[in-house]
Amino acid sequence: MSVPSQTIAPLGESIQLDTTTLTPFPNSRKIYVEGSRPDIRVPLREIQLSDTHLSTGQTETNSPITVYDSSGVYSDPSVTIDVCQGIPPVRAQWIIERGDTEVLPQVSSNYGKNRLNDPRLENLRFAHQIRTPRKAKAGHNVTQLHYARKGIITPEMEYIAIRENQRLETLRETDLKNRHTGESFGASIPKIITPEFVRAEVARGRAIIPANINHTELEPMIIGRNFLVKVNANIGNSATTSSIAEEVEKMVWSIRWGADTVMDLSTGKHIHETREWILRNSPVPIGTVPIYQALEKVDGKAEELTWEIFRDTLIEQAEQGVDYFTIHAGVRLAYVPLTAKRLTGIVSRGGAIMAKWCLAHHQENFLYTHFADICEIMQAYDISFSLGDGLRPGSIADANDAAQFAELETLGELTRYAWQQDVQVMVEGPGHVPLHLIKENMDKQLKECDEAPFYTLGPLTTDIAPGYDHITSGIGAAMIGWYGCAMLCYVTPKEHLGLPNKHDVREGIVTYKIAAHAADLAKGHPSAQIRDNAMSKARFEFRWEDQFSLGLDPLKAREFHDETLPKESAKVAHFCSMCGPHFCSMKITQDVRDYAQNKGIADVKIAVETGLAEKAEEFTTQGAVIYR
Amino acid sequence: MSVPSQTIAPLGESIQLDTTTLTPFPNSRKIYVEGSRPDIRVPLREIQLSDTHLSTGQTETNSPITVYDSSGVYSDPSVTIDVCQGIPPVRAQWIIERGDTEVLPQVSSNYGKNRLNDPRLENLRFAHQIRTPRKAKAGHNVTQLHYARKGIITPEMEYIAIRENQRLETLRETDLKNRHTGESFGASIPKIITPEFVRAEVARGRAIIPANINHTELEPMIIGRNFLVKVNANIGNSATTSSIAEEVEKMVWSIRWGADTVMDLSTGKHIHETREWILRNSPVPIGTVPIYQALEKVDGKAEELTWEIFRDTLIEQAEQGVDYFTIHAGVRLAYVPLTAKRLTGIVSRGGAIMAKWCLAHHQENFLYTHFADICEIMQAYDISFSLGDGLRPGSIADANDAAQFAELETLGELTRYAWQQDVQVMVEGPGHVPLHLIKENMDKQLKECDEAPFYTLGPLTTDIAPGYDHITSGIGAAMIGWYGCAMLCYVTPKEHLGLPNKHDVREGIVTYKIAAHAADLAKGHPSAQIRDNAMSKARFEFRWEDQFSLGLDPLKAREFHDETLPKESAKVAHFCSMCGPHFCSMKITQDVRDYAQNKGIADVKIAVETGLAEKAEEFTTQGAVIYR
Repeated sequence: MSVPSQTIAPLGESIQLDTTTLTPFPNSRKIYVEGSRPDIRVPLREIQLSDTHLSTGQTETNSPITVYDSSGVYSDPSVTIDVCQGIPPVRAQWIIERGDTEVLPQVSSNYGKNRLNDPRLENLRFAHQIRTPRKAKAGHNVTQLHYARKGIITPEMEYIAIRENQRLETLRETDLKNRHTGESFGASIPKIITPEFVRAEVARGRAIIPANINHTELEPMIIGRNFLVKVNANIGNSATTSSIAEEVEKMVWSIRWGADTVMDLSTGKHIHETREWILRNSPVPIGTVPIYQALEKVDGKAEELTWEIFRDTLIEQAEQGVDYFTIHAGVRLAYVPLTAKRLTGIVSRGGAIMAKWCLAHHQENFLYTHFADICEIMQAYDISFSLGDGLRPGSIADANDAAQFAELETLGELTRYAWQQDVQVMVEGPGHVPLHLIKENMDKQLKECDEAPFYTLGPLTTDIAPGYDHITSGIGAAMIGWYGCAMLCYVTPKEHLGLPNKHDVREGIVTYKIAAHAADLAKGHPSAQIRDNAMSKARFEFRWEDQFSLGLDPLKAREFHDETLPKESAKVAHFCSMCGPHFCSMKITQDVRDYAQNKGIADVKIAVETGLAEKAEEFTTQGAVIYR
Repeated sequence: MSVPSQTIAPLGESIQLDTTTLTPFPNSRKIYVEGSRPDIRVPLREIQLSDTHLSTGQTETNSPITVYDSSGVYSDPSVTIDVCQGIPPVRAQWIIERGDTEVLPQVSSNYGKNRLNDPRLENLRFAHQIRTPRKAKAGHNVTQLHYARKGIITPEMEYIAIRENQRLETLRETDLKNRHTGESFGASIPKIITPEFVRAEVARGRAIIPANINHTELEPMIIGRNFLVKVNANIGNSATTSSIAEEVEKMVWSIRWGADTVMDLSTGKHIHETREWILRNSPVPIGTVPIYQALEKVDGKAEELTWEIFRDTLIEQAEQGVDYFTIHAGVRLAYVPLTAKRLTGIVSRGGAIMAKWCLAHHQENFLYTHFADICEIMQAYDISFSLGDGLRPGSIADANDAAQFAELETLGELTRYAWQQDVQVMVEGPGHVPLHLIKENMDKQLKECDEAPFYTLGPLTTDIAPGYDHITSGIGAAMIGWYGCAMLCYVTPKEHLGLPNKHDVREGIVTYKIAAHAADLAKGHPSAQIRDNAMSKARFEFRWEDQFSLGLDPLKAREFHDETLPKESAKVAHFCSMCGPHFCSMKITQDVRDYAQNKGIADVKIAVETGLAEKAEEFTTQGAVIYR
């Protein structure tokens, strides 16, 4: 994949966003709920539903359903999108107002300076302008955790409370009643999320708000076991494929399908410039694994990595606005030999790099020994830790072994240290785990890391289905989400085989939205079942359009329906293709219900009992069923 | 879809089996393991693996892996397939030898006679010849359960023991050692399955062998919690679409991807003839829901159904060779009003039909009152019950409600009655259930039905993803399989939207094979992890071809890999597309391992500890990590 290199314009122009990402889904519109100040405008998606036609001939209105919306301004037709300008900096004023940050005279990292001054990169840089970065004033800590502990409710926190509630307060009591209470394994999700609840959870360390002060374009979101389960999508070029334009398109495509955060895992050329384009256009938190880029800077030779190169990379990325860093500080020298007898050794890229470095130098992991220094950088830009599980199992065989759990204990230690520095932390988890060992992972993480949010990849529940690893892992993801995992890192059908294309990304994200929602339902999240109930009612009433609208992927639902019954008239027909026009169980059920209603349920019951009484003797003499 | 109507030949000729179904997967070959007599020849699939190239320059052989094979003779290149002849009747001699059955002078059902004598159907009938059916001699019971209780080990039982073992006995002790012991929730799967164990489980009612004496083409298989979890695929035409040829192709296609049984749920035209073609070509058990056909016979008017029509339908299908019948005898009159307040009423087709009948007549369900009569028919042909869950929930909202559990209690009662008559029974289950309510379903079924095999549809764990219901339900299927469910009825991506095409069937079955295998792994099935381990080893060693071969869908795995790296050379390259040639975590891990091996792990440990000791003071003075 070559990148255009003649003029400045072409790169921005070459970014062609899919029209799907630039329009609301059918029968949906973007709404904004305003908070306590006019610049807190929280985007949600309102799904309009059609009326129910009762058998009496009357109609009944179905209230619109409001759902969480991660798709950003792209799906707002009133906003003109220009990727060369980036999206609106919704947080800019909040950060300025806090008065604890300052604009730097220039970027601080050596690498950032070099890239900025390299004339050969002119045509690759973010087209609008590289903003001069902002940093905490000397002696200040600008993390949301720091504010939370001081009792301050930030606009970010209020924004999140509105966002998580999904206008639950507008629903009738009856809408909320018809739901299962769930089993939350110790999570405690309140009926209504208040800004104070958000603050308290962040202060407790049980939730994080990944929100770098240099990522002003961010629509704030939260990750924690007492909130909706979130989904991360990975993008990123590699040495073999992909370009900057493709990565920006992938990011916008990912949030369209519901990704709550996006990790840029680029390892190829122009990582720095790619990241700038992504951040300026991303309404969701962007995470990275800085060691990947650091490794590029030493030509892929792990043993040549140094703290200085790594530190410069952290600052370079911090000043661009990366919201969370995966840091593999738990891969301690002493744990590396524990992996030697594994079936699949170390499969985490970051883990493998650090293991190699440790052995090459016979020294403790420099990410561990410099953890305090890293925390200082995190404080100054409000970057959240995503403590990497570099020793996660790479196969069913290696699940829950000594190496994995030794690292997890160290991650707990690092969590507590970061908390002492008021730095936000989540903890990464596996990987490949059979069903019966998943809960042990979650329970141990909750214990060792004192409820810091868990963020897992899958886990895959079997290794024998390459080409379907979104499914092998979606099973594990649903379960660990139920048990308490706060964010699920998606897996695409191409996992272990190749780089995902757009189709794969969509499949992977929707699969993980299913897992996250199934977990929310099982935990008894107060708003989760509303959408299921609306779908089920639409299904029962043959409101086909509403079934499409309410689905996680309205376009595919419609496309699949139309494959069998393409005619428009079929979308209002009281039968579906499975049964045909003369025979449909749902129609028969409606008859049963009408019957019960006409007679009154009590009457039917009496009739039934009378019938049974009459039949009783017959049964026993016939011997149809012997006992009871 | 019109069916050819000019000559006899065209229908058979119009059945075009996909070439995929007529060839073994790459690097796989069909093997037959012979039992105690030469006509017990159990098909298995042997996957050949390539050598491991060690870093020392030596090579290491990887033993072939033997796996279960449901694909029948279609994937045996030495067998010439002629759908007009049907496949070889492997069981014919065993049935004759038992001497307890007789060939009838003609088919017994009125409907069967009429169809046979209708000249307009000449061109639709199974091309070879309609075999005259066989039935138990008067006073005889020919069920596998009856034999089992008499202490007889049938050839079917021996066949199954060999099949379930997958040549486990040929493996080295070390291959078997590296596995998780699992959590089986009370299942007890022996290390080696013996014919006596099969007999004992059948005698106990804990497993069934669906094997109609008129389905001589059957390769026997078993359904029970102490055996491999099985998968069912549904096929069947409807009034709106599909032809006989398509249904035969779907059946062959289904078993190619791993379906262990196939249900023919046809509701359209020519159900009788379609079934004949399917049975004569099917090596797997065929299940049906006879009430569907009975309903066709009364032009879709449920209230016009009678026991006589239903009985004739049972006999008609019994004499064709159907192996198990879904019978909705648990939909009792008294339970119907319990569904009136549901969000989605009665969604089971069979359940809706019987509910309508009950209310129309104010009478108890005739399937319940005639249950003893039905048992008599089941005994005479060895048809297994699949007790239908006509009141299963059709939505998350309705899961685990009074109607569902009332019916389940009745299914338990019916199970015990059928067992008294030496008739084999499995019990059907939901449906739509949130994660946290799945186990209650399984536990209650085990209790109420005294461990009779459970056979569930999914369950779907959320309702909001039409177009992805293979995934919403695959999650639930894996979990209920782990908890003890014996067979999982697949769901395709088209569920709730339309009729599945070939692509959907493949997606649905592979998803369910994943769920079944994940369940086997978690239960600690002795042979389950062998394939995962072989895959993981191949993955670690960059043996790409072996990864494809070992997967549930070798063709898709290869296709996905080649999308990114199509060159043949890439298949032996020590890197994959995710990381590129200069950077690969697995390669680094190998370096780590080589290092550890060169130094000796003990040495490395000492080095590590020495290193740590040296570093200890430094850590504390630096204050990198404060406590411990």
